[in-house]
Amino acid sequence: MEEDRQVAPPGASSDKSDKPRPKRHARHAPARQRTGRPKGTGRRAPPEVDPATVIFGLHASAFALDNPDRRIKAIHVTENAERRLGDAIERHRRLVVRASPRDLDKRLGPDTVHQGIVLDVEPLEPSSLASLTASAREKAAPIIILDQVTDPHNVGAVLRSAAVFGAAGIVMTHRHSPPLGGALAKAASGALELTPVCLVRNLADAIAEIRAEGLVVIGLDVEGTDFLEDALAPGPSPQALALGAEGKGLRALTRQSCDRLCRIGGDGPISSLNVSNAAAVALHLAAMRRRRTKES
Amino acid sequence: MEEDRQVAPPGASSDKSDKPRPKRHARHAPARQRTGRPKGTGRRAPPEVDPATVIFGLHASAFALDNPDRRIKAIHVTENAERRLGDAIERHRRLVVRASPRDLDKRLGPDTVHQGIVLDVEPLEPSSLASLTASAREKAAPIIILDQVTDPHNVGAVLRSAAVFGAAGIVMTHRHSPPLGGALAKAASGALELTPVCLVRNLADAIAEIRAEGLVVIGLDVEGTDFLEDALAPGPSPQALALGAEGKGLRALTRQSCDRLCRIGGDGPISSLNVSNAAAVALHLAAMRRRRTKES
Repeated sequence: MEEDRQVAPPGASSDKSDKPRPKRHARHAPARQRTGRPKGTGRRAPPEVDPATVIFGLHASAFALDNPDRRIKAIHVTENAERRLGDAIERHRRLVVRASPRDLDKRLGPDTVHQGIVLDVEPLEPSSLASLTASAREKAAPIIILDQVTDPHNVGAVLRSAAVFGAAGIVMTHRHSPPLGGALAKAASGALELTPVCLVRNLADAIAEIRAEGLVVIGLDVEGTDFLEDALAPGPSPQALALGAEGKGLRALTRQSCDRLCRIGGDGPISSLNVSNAAAVALHLAAMRRRRTKES
Repeated sequence: MEEDRQVAPPGASSDKSDKPRPKRHARHAPARQRTGRPKGTGRRAPPEVDPATVIFGLHASAFALDNPDRRIKAIHVTENAERRLGDAIERHRRLVVRASPRDLDKRLGPDTVHQGIVLDVEPLEPSSLASLTASAREKAAPIIILDQVTDPHNVGAVLRSAAVFGAAGIVMTHRHSPPLGGALAKAASGALELTPVCLVRNLADAIAEIRAEGLVVIGLDVEGTDFLEDALAPGPSPQALALGAEGKGLRALTRQSCDRLCRIGGDGPISSLNVSNAAAVALHLAAMRRRRTKES
């Protein structure tokens, strides 16, 4: 969703900071390439940690430890956190490395809320677009398409809502998307282990492929002509919903690639929702519709 | 909303970190008391800055500069940000202090995305509960009640959604709520200047007062008996919606104080939404209902 187009000062919609960005280190470049690490989004983590290869926080770690597809390499954990996680850790006993809160602070930087546990992991295998569209058709569940949403907390929150409302999965670009681990995994609160993510090179091509598979692709935009609730209610199923980044919204080519553009209805003084809130509203509408179809 | 009660490991729902918290400084204690500064939520800002007395970021600053009720004391701004904000700054010309990005980094800490502008401000006067209930009745718009939601980004995102969907306002406690400025204002993206906030000492008393004014108070809880969409659809208007913190959810007394408990329907593998996403879904439902009532 775009930010506040009507009310914002000109140019204020850019999410670029005036601040100089720290230099990136190339040491993990291959892994970052593979896992779609974007430029400059790892600002809070010390540069030697690739966010795609760590999971921290109690919820995110518990789900990762329970995920048979997740390869765990080491579990750095405080006594306190280990007690809280119980069985989930017990199954991986030989990987446990006792750590103090200070050890973990040192590793991830003092501002990371690790809750006493940091896992060293391999990134999950990304899903294929074909598997997502097949699942969307089978479950009549939407696919969420994210157009260069770079903030890991936002993408993590979208993953969490996708898991709550049973979305088929998330499509995003290799570049200009946050690493699939670290802060994103923490914000996803376990959902990174549950919701398929497909990384594509070109979003317009991916949208074309999704449409070719029979899905209707709706772009969410404050200037959309119809309310999303009206578009979803009687519309054909299954669907995909495209959302853009804070400030920039959907890019022109993404917009043109969609079947239609819709807005989320509000009558307040600001026109644009935070992207994860817009995704939650859209996913909830789709879930309500699915529930009513089942009940009727 | 509670986090993932069914699936989380025991104890994992606490949002307490194992990390030691930095000591708070008492210098600004009176202002903090007045503006409801909670314990330990200002972790990212250097301790000498009271988050309730700064606004940063282009959107948040533009709205603050345009708000006649907001007392601005100084505008620390880079040349670049000043160009972007244009007229909004022009009206406050005598308050401008030219700053470099590095000056602002030094003031707020290197992790704060200030986008080249930091305002020194007086906190806004909080609203009264009576004015919120009057506005809720007049506009048939919901009040959002936050039960010890301490994360400033979450509360900021709730304010933003409240402004998009035209809520009557937000009620939260003096204690255990984030300061009304800084990171909260940035996440609210201008909505802190637009959405009335009422700070109360005791939430159960406030809920009793809201109910005495004729509003139905619905608590959102993963264990709620009915779907919120069913409760809102034919139910009496106006309403208030109570949401709890990540992990803890609504406290027992808050739960008991509500007229009823509802859940937000999902059929996915995780049961609990991020609190700002839950608020967005609830506010959108209320806005859809209001729109349909108007149209019919």
